Amino acid sequence: MASTTSATSTRSADLWADVKPAAARRMLLAAVDAFAAEGYSAATTRDIAERAGMSPAAVYVHYRSKADLLYAISLVGSQSSLDAVTAALEEETDPVQRLRGYVSAFVAWHAHNHTLARVIQYELKALTPEHFDEVDALRRRRAGLLRSELRRGARAGAFQIDDQATTALAILSMGIDVARWYTRSPSPRVLGTRYADLAVRLVGAHG
Amino acid sequence: MASTTSATSTRSADLWADVKPAAARRMLLAAVDAFAAEGYSAATTRDIAERAGMSPAAVYVHYRSKADLLYAISLVGSQSSLDAVTAALEEETDPVQRLRGYVSAFVAWHAHNHTLARVIQYELKALTPEHFDEVDALRRRRAGLLRSELRRGARAGAFQIDDQATTALAILSMGIDVARWYTRSPSPRVLGTRYADLAVRLVGAHG
Repeated sequence: MASTTSATSTRSADLWADVKPAAARRMLLAAVDAFAAEGYSAATTRDIAERAGMSPAAVYVHYRSKADLLYAISLVGSQSSLDAVTAALEEETDPVQRLRGYVSAFVAWHAHNHTLARVIQYELKALTPEHFDEVDALRRRRAGLLRSELRRGARAGAFQIDDQATTALAILSMGIDVARWYTRSPSPRVLGTRYADLAVRLVGAHG
Repeated sequence: MASTTSATSTRSADLWADVKPAAARRMLLAAVDAFAAEGYSAATTRDIAERAGMSPAAVYVHYRSKADLLYAISLVGSQSSLDAVTAALEEETDPVQRLRGYVSAFVAWHAHNHTLARVIQYELKALTPEHFDEVDALRRRRAGLLRSELRRGARAGAFQIDDQATTALAILSMGIDVARWYTRSPSPRVLGTRYADLAVRLVGAHG
């Protein structure tokens, strides 16, 4: 079986770098494309093999099933976006700058990885319950980091928030939905900055 | 073929009321459930017939194909959400109240009709190009109404917006993404009001 080690070190553009060997990595990329184009249910192992330029039998060398591919994709992707926001938070101390960092990273990740993000998002229900729980835990940690920021910023008097839960939800939604509509522009970085400006408004701070 | 007339009069809870006869309506509801549960590609006409308590042959009396069912669903749903925001705007004159009305109606619609909204959202790419264009036109009108509100509010000095396009996009995303996470609470009306508060912050107005 291919190894999909924790992507903690994967903050670069290539979030698949930790997937070894290269054939397994090529398979995952092909599976992302196949699931995005045809939907998880409709995509076949044969489609995926073809997109990867391999024989159908080669898929099974690295992954037991289509379900295993979806699981690996969801895990690598969710870990990568969690890493992106964690790294952004580590760079800042001021509550407003931390919020800006989180939102910029979150939005830029979803723009940059929009095809992958769409597959994870739309096919979550196709995961087995155990795999879902594992992927969902990463997503909850990602959301939990934002809620902590809102709490701390409010406690420090930097944010004026009426409803922390709804505000966190709205900020996450703005970012997650980027994957649905994003194609090529503006650049992930520019979009991230614009959404950071909006998040600052939502928390009643002054950026 | 079943008639799926413009749902302009359908502002009530039952947005399928205009679909006649009742058997066609039952079929559409069954198709929404089947597409939501299994995905459009994986759901079969047989599944849909079973969910509707009809024979597979009965489906073809009303709809030529699974594609026709998806088209009818997408059209009725998109028209209904456009009607909901249009009706909300008609009730208000003040820019802030109009924005609140639009956002409340948009969010409440997505909460109330979350299963339907999810099917339309996730399966848009399964529509034929002609059908897509027709459904997309309704969605563009819905987005255009919001952009007009932002423009007018800014011109009237009621809103202080840095970037109208991004602000409109973020407000729409907040609402559309409700369909993804919503299950039962808070009530669509309460959620709509909370998101209206957030939209007022995003446009730099005072609610």
